[in-house]
Amino acid sequence: MIKSEINIRVLYAHTDKMGIINNGRYLEYFEAGRNTLLRGIGFPYTELEKLNYGLPVIEAHVNYISTGAYDDVVVIRSFLKALPTVRVKIDYELSVNEKIIATGYTIHSFINLITLKPARPPKEFVELVGQKLGPED
Amino acid sequence: MIKSEINIRVLYAHTDKMGIINNGRYLEYFEAGRNTLLRGIGFPYTELEKLNYGLPVIEAHVNYISTGAYDDVVVIRSFLKALPTVRVKIDYELSVNEKIIATGYTIHSFINLITLKPARPPKEFVELVGQKLGPED
Amino acid sequence: MIKSEINIRVLYAHTDKMGIINNGRYLEYFEAGRNTLLRGIGFPYTELEKLNYGLPVIEAHVNYISTGAYDDVVVIRSFLKALPTVRVKIDYELSVNEKIIATGYTIHSFINLITLKPARPPKEFVELVGQKLGPED
Amino acid sequence: MIKSEINIRVLYAHTDKMGIINNGRYLEYFEAGRNTLLRGIGFPYTELEKLNYGLPVIEAHVNYISTGAYDDVVVIRSFLKALPTVRVKIDYELSVNEKIIATGYTIHSFINLITLKPARPPKEFVELVGQKLGPED
Repeated sequence: MIKSEINIRVLYAHTDKMGIINNGRYLEYFEAGRNTLLRGIGFPYTELEKLNYGLPVIEAHVNYISTGAYDDVVVIRSFLKALPTVRVKIDYELSVNEKIIATGYTIHSFINLITLKPARPPKEFVELVGQKLGPED
Repeated sequence: MIKSEINIRVLYAHTDKMGIINNGRYLEYFEAGRNTLLRGIGFPYTELEKLNYGLPVIEAHVNYISTGAYDDVVVIRSFLKALPTVRVKIDYELSVNEKIIATGYTIHSFINLITLKPARPPKEFVELVGQKLGPED
Repeated sequence: MIKSEINIRVLYAHTDKMGIINNGRYLEYFEAGRNTLLRGIGFPYTELEKLNYGLPVIEAHVNYISTGAYDDVVVIRSFLKALPTVRVKIDYELSVNEKIIATGYTIHSFINLITLKPARPPKEFVELVGQKLGPED
Repeated sequence: MIKSEINIRVLYAHTDKMGIINNGRYLEYFEAGRNTLLRGIGFPYTELEKLNYGLPVIEAHVNYISTGAYDDVVVIRSFLKALPTVRVKIDYELSVNEKIIATGYTIHSFINLITLKPARPPKEFVELVGQKLGPED
């Protein structure tokens, strides 16, 4: 399993009148998580773009377990658990002060940015992920 | 089944560099949908708040089927298919020019806004939904 | 003076923990206003894009006079008061229940979307604005 | 002059179809900047809230000088140049790779969070700012 971690401090702009992080903001937190995950793999998303690959989200799911408040530091952990095929799934776990506030996942499809058609992931990317995942994954 | 419909025109602020609606924006579109749904039932969300009820999202799911572009008019259809218990599920279908671009749902928990504890939904709300749903639902 | 008007209902996603519209959201409301203004002129922004023109914001100003709350309907009035040159200024006035909650403006620069260099506005656009402004403006 | 600095990496969610940071996002970057500035003074915004003070934005201005792209790291520098009175002004300078992409300011009014009326800033806050500003400011 490949893991990454990044922290985001909750701004007023992230909250809503219930005084907590607005439910819509979590998908942006997820994006921050996978940006960090891909960078950690050594294949930042910008590299995929340079090779004319896009990774649009085709499915997203969020379980809101608890809440985060203004000025809290949300720890965003992202997980890649399996080799990418034409799709790749990333899991997320968000916590504040070691208490999990949300879990979820996004599923992405590789596309060719020129034709906008589904595409196999770049070989270098799959190999790199394979090395990082290790034989036990 | 209770239905509602509202249109939102896609702004630049809704798009991202892929030239399409950013995946995170859909949860806000869902919120616009359920705001309209509750108003249509005759029990706008502000009425729930006046009775000290909140309806935080506890689960959200989005299937991104196609895309919407800048200046498209997204038709947001929302559906309430069953009587609310301590939870209520709302389904969504988003389309552009009669082509479905996304489906999804949110699950909400009734809470008492003062104690922030889960609560049974207000009786008037359940009755009103019951009347609108009709015997066949 | 060319005027336009569009309404936006305040969602939870627009508010912050102070219980009012988050200050950052106003620039999106402004965008909704100018989208409507340009459409009203008969030259929607998408037409400018088709001619390879962009209109990036080069300056934005907001005066927050009062506040808007969840579920309020914000009336966004936009004003174009002078012929566009290489720049165009749009003024905004936002109100809730006929009470002004904010005023402001954005200044935009015409650019060629291919070269990304500043450009003179398309002649058809200037003529159309000239006709709509009328001799007294 | 009191200064602070914080970095934010540009996400897809921050960009729009022009491929650059959406103009509306800058006000959120400003908020991240002043959150850091107040924390650096030793008086985080949450402390103001605990004393029942709010600091709503009453004026915001952005000069968009250049642009930031996806995955860029935006360095947000914030400046407090004068003792707060009933109002406080904060200046901002945003840069990417040492190139300034935007400048701007926000003006805030101290309010009592219970009465929502304008208020003098807390004495401790003014003193702390006075010490940090130094005699030459």
